[in-house]
Amino acid sequence: MSRSHNCGQLTLGHIGETVTLNGWVQTRRDLGGVLFIDLRDRTGIVQVVFNPDYSGEALQIADKVRSEYVLSVTGKVVKRDEETINRNLPTGEIEVQITEIEVLNAAKTPPFFIEDGVEVDESLRMKYRYLDLRRPEMYKTMLLRSKAAKIFRDFLDSEGFIEIETPILTKSSPEGARDYLVPSRVHEGEFFGLPQSPQIYKQLLMVGGIERYYQMARCFRDEDLRADRQPEFTQFDIETSFMPQDELLSLMETLMQRLLKETVGVDVAVPFQRLTYAEAMGKYGSDKPDLRFGLELVEMNDIVAASGVKVFASVIEKGGEVKCLNAKGCGTWTRKEIDDLGPYAARYGAKGLAWIQVKDGEFKGPIVKFFTEEEIAAVKERTGAEEGDLLLFSADTKKVVADVLGALRLKIGRQLGLIDDSVFKFAWVTEFPLLGYDEDQKRYVAEHHPFTRPMDEDLHLFDTDPGAIRAQAYDIVLNGYEVGGGSQRIYKREIQEKMFDALGFTTEVAYEKFGYLLDAFEYGTPPHGGIAFGFDRLIMLLAGRTNLREAIAFPKTASATDLLMDAPAPVDAIQLEQLHIKLAPKPDKEKK
Amino acid sequence: MSRSHNCGQLTLGHIGETVTLNGWVQTRRDLGGVLFIDLRDRTGIVQVVFNPDYSGEALQIADKVRSEYVLSVTGKVVKRDEETINRNLPTGEIEVQITEIEVLNAAKTPPFFIEDGVEVDESLRMKYRYLDLRRPEMYKTMLLRSKAAKIFRDFLDSEGFIEIETPILTKSSPEGARDYLVPSRVHEGEFFGLPQSPQIYKQLLMVGGIERYYQMARCFRDEDLRADRQPEFTQFDIETSFMPQDELLSLMETLMQRLLKETVGVDVAVPFQRLTYAEAMGKYGSDKPDLRFGLELVEMNDIVAASGVKVFASVIEKGGEVKCLNAKGCGTWTRKEIDDLGPYAARYGAKGLAWIQVKDGEFKGPIVKFFTEEEIAAVKERTGAEEGDLLLFSADTKKVVADVLGALRLKIGRQLGLIDDSVFKFAWVTEFPLLGYDEDQKRYVAEHHPFTRPMDEDLHLFDTDPGAIRAQAYDIVLNGYEVGGGSQRIYKREIQEKMFDALGFTTEVAYEKFGYLLDAFEYGTPPHGGIAFGFDRLIMLLAGRTNLREAIAFPKTASATDLLMDAPAPVDAIQLEQLHIKLAPKPDKEKK
Repeated sequence: MSRSHNCGQLTLGHIGETVTLNGWVQTRRDLGGVLFIDLRDRTGIVQVVFNPDYSGEALQIADKVRSEYVLSVTGKVVKRDEETINRNLPTGEIEVQITEIEVLNAAKTPPFFIEDGVEVDESLRMKYRYLDLRRPEMYKTMLLRSKAAKIFRDFLDSEGFIEIETPILTKSSPEGARDYLVPSRVHEGEFFGLPQSPQIYKQLLMVGGIERYYQMARCFRDEDLRADRQPEFTQFDIETSFMPQDELLSLMETLMQRLLKETVGVDVAVPFQRLTYAEAMGKYGSDKPDLRFGLELVEMNDIVAASGVKVFASVIEKGGEVKCLNAKGCGTWTRKEIDDLGPYAARYGAKGLAWIQVKDGEFKGPIVKFFTEEEIAAVKERTGAEEGDLLLFSADTKKVVADVLGALRLKIGRQLGLIDDSVFKFAWVTEFPLLGYDEDQKRYVAEHHPFTRPMDEDLHLFDTDPGAIRAQAYDIVLNGYEVGGGSQRIYKREIQEKMFDALGFTTEVAYEKFGYLLDAFEYGTPPHGGIAFGFDRLIMLLAGRTNLREAIAFPKTASATDLLMDAPAPVDAIQLEQLHIKLAPKPDKEKK
Repeated sequence: MSRSHNCGQLTLGHIGETVTLNGWVQTRRDLGGVLFIDLRDRTGIVQVVFNPDYSGEALQIADKVRSEYVLSVTGKVVKRDEETINRNLPTGEIEVQITEIEVLNAAKTPPFFIEDGVEVDESLRMKYRYLDLRRPEMYKTMLLRSKAAKIFRDFLDSEGFIEIETPILTKSSPEGARDYLVPSRVHEGEFFGLPQSPQIYKQLLMVGGIERYYQMARCFRDEDLRADRQPEFTQFDIETSFMPQDELLSLMETLMQRLLKETVGVDVAVPFQRLTYAEAMGKYGSDKPDLRFGLELVEMNDIVAASGVKVFASVIEKGGEVKCLNAKGCGTWTRKEIDDLGPYAARYGAKGLAWIQVKDGEFKGPIVKFFTEEEIAAVKERTGAEEGDLLLFSADTKKVVADVLGALRLKIGRQLGLIDDSVFKFAWVTEFPLLGYDEDQKRYVAEHHPFTRPMDEDLHLFDTDPGAIRAQAYDIVLNGYEVGGGSQRIYKREIQEKMFDALGFTTEVAYEKFGYLLDAFEYGTPPHGGIAFGFDRLIMLLAGRTNLREAIAFPKTASATDLLMDAPAPVDAIQLEQLHIKLAPKPDKEKK
């Protein structure tokens, strides 16, 4: 019996109609010989009733069904009695009086209840992902994801972007994260690499005159995993030619605006706030600041350099810095509450955490006595300290200070309830450093990648201070998460050569690593640039989740395992032989 | 200078406007000190003019540019003089008088001309794919592909299908083609397999209550390649629950109808012709018949069994068959022309090719004398032989006869100009055999896959004649190519057990191979089925090409090589060590 309606769709408007429904048994209740089944399909739940008065043989059949049985039922939609109306259910005003039933399939008792909000061990959910996906919140997330992809595509299509698929079996890349490799059967001793991103291909497409490209691209990184990393992930990958950076950013703002409106129904204002990397690090201690609340960090060097607080003075002398976070209203915390911040700060590298309470109109705390009255007044003015505030100081290298106070800002913001989860706050972070110094390799490495275009006004720094060069690179940040990033690319040979030079690559090395791209760049490369959105993370945020795995239909665990398929797994010896490889187990002592 | 217009977009309506164009130099002609450049972007070509009268310094700069230089130019759109109008160019009635120019980039002379219809070695095109893509026909194919993907998606979205991404890093599958493997770094000695299709995942999604799924999925097969195979390929993958086969097929017909209308502007009628596998093989000698022309094969056994043609009689006695192809109008061929068909037929397994010419009102040819007059009359009636026809006979096993006459039918159809390339002729081929007997393994193997549902009316044959069971499987055929295929799936345990039994799998073996799916099937599996379209092949046909590589942005060669990136390639020893594998070269004598 083919369905005529979906379960979640039935309303008072269907009363009197005979309908056929297909779905799963959510619950089954027998009340004095009358059987009530909540039947579920992907659209929702409806109550179907088997009553000796009208169900005949169907009642006997229905009597044997259990949770998660698959049914096809036919019956008449009727209004429920006033006292049995279920206001919590969209279909709660009606029920269906069943006259025919077919049991399409039986089901064993599932290992967990198919409903939202159940407390289930995540590995059990992953092993039985096909049952987990039946839970309404999982289905809703998948629907959201599908819808979001469509919004991206419709928007980009309407702006003249062309979707082009790039290879998955490609070349292991010489820079960046670890690649997954695929041994070749045809070419003995050779390997494909799975792409960390379509970066090279999308730049080649620009050389190829495609001008506006996009792809929902699968990417792969064989890195040790964290909660928000997966070995394979999806990015919405975009590249344009002849489009100035501002135009691209503004186009992406419109896309995000539409995405938020059409998925979660939230209006976000454009243009988004733009912060330089230096501003973001300075005010928020992070290159992906959560801008849903204030609590900005305050520069203290000039005020405290000459103070009696020795550690401040010495840090500043060594080129470090002192900054303050005014934890508004935390001045009433107990000593223990304040002290508890210490270990937390230590996780981010803090060697100590100085603090001042503003209590009974006075500055209080161990370091207060080392300040002059003028210094106290200056601190007060700079930090806006008021009665009941708690000033937290970090003194260390720039990086440690940013990490420590950035983390404390988030912790305290959350603790004080300053973060409104219904708010979506986008920002651009721009002018990232082009190069970072790698102490291991004793050379500069590309912060973004070796084809990122430097800012024109910084080009002269190649000769004097490469580390100070800012890139035409940008991240898009949402609620403290980096949800995308990109850059304008180098398209002029002479700048590319300067870049390789700064990275310590000879022409030969550069050619060996990126020959195909450098060749391509010789044949008329247009100015180009792009961006890629981390689609999994974006969906996670739109769905209001905090775990990336909730946004993916079949995710892998933190140890890169597919618990459902039990992959990876050993393979037959003959398969390896055909691929010209053999296993090379580590000696036992080397194993962890 | 940011572009204000695209090159191909300018018409008489823009006259008088000052425009800025960005693009590549297609050609450059100097006519008495006036410089004419055809500037190309992805939308087309427009003539821009540098004249001492108005171009000033821009002329000197322009004088230095060569083919494929990247320019930004600004100037005024003017009407061309009547005698210089180029009717072959959409922009041929206007030109742009340039006043400003910026050379965005220089270019070396490309290894081949950037224009359609050039004769270039394909490997050169693949190595310089980024230049090849600049050719208008390649860009048009990419645009067609992007558009086709959008049509698929829009249609499926509107029908309530949800796009879900399934993993690329998955498990090596125990049946079917050879897998690509990916060694795991984290799990020593274990491997991921790249998916040959999302088959298992999409069935799990149906178990998971998704009901309507689709995905533009990348698939991988490590098989020896042919002209129409690629190691990685794209399929539009679709699966539904609770949808009868007829409903699915009719939905797909509407999708194809829309696709053809919106890409190539062709109306195709629905419903499509439906042939059973037996009909297709019988009439056309192929399970993917080209139905743009007739030339149907004719069954001859009853007529020729008792004839004096010994080979016919003996073949029939051994259970083989004799069939005839009436090559209309080929009766005038010379003996040499007819004889030349022999070697061609031999490629498809023919041991010989008997023939009869209808000439001067008579049957002529070596075998005619072995027929009685009644037999001649019967042959004539059955084949519809008329003056000027050529009857070709194949006598062999069913398979060889189908292969030989099927191939001859295509060859002769093409030769006679019976195939109209502007016609798109779809058909469904249904009722495929469920099982085929594998002589090597001495057992039945699944023709489609082990989860294909048998036809209900054939279930009893499991006990008596498994080879005769027909499957609820269907292919969609377009102009002689299989462009998609699918099946309804087994969802009842007892039928799945019969199937495994027929395949010679014990419960243990079945569980070892497909445990996760069999487990899943225990928890309330809905009736489900689906289809997958070979997207690359579909695009190839829509673009009017005959080589799959023309439909793919970055294809691989017949030896699974990416000539552009030079992949696969050797990798560093340290990479292999981290993956717990080492190279195992074949001894020299084993190498080909």
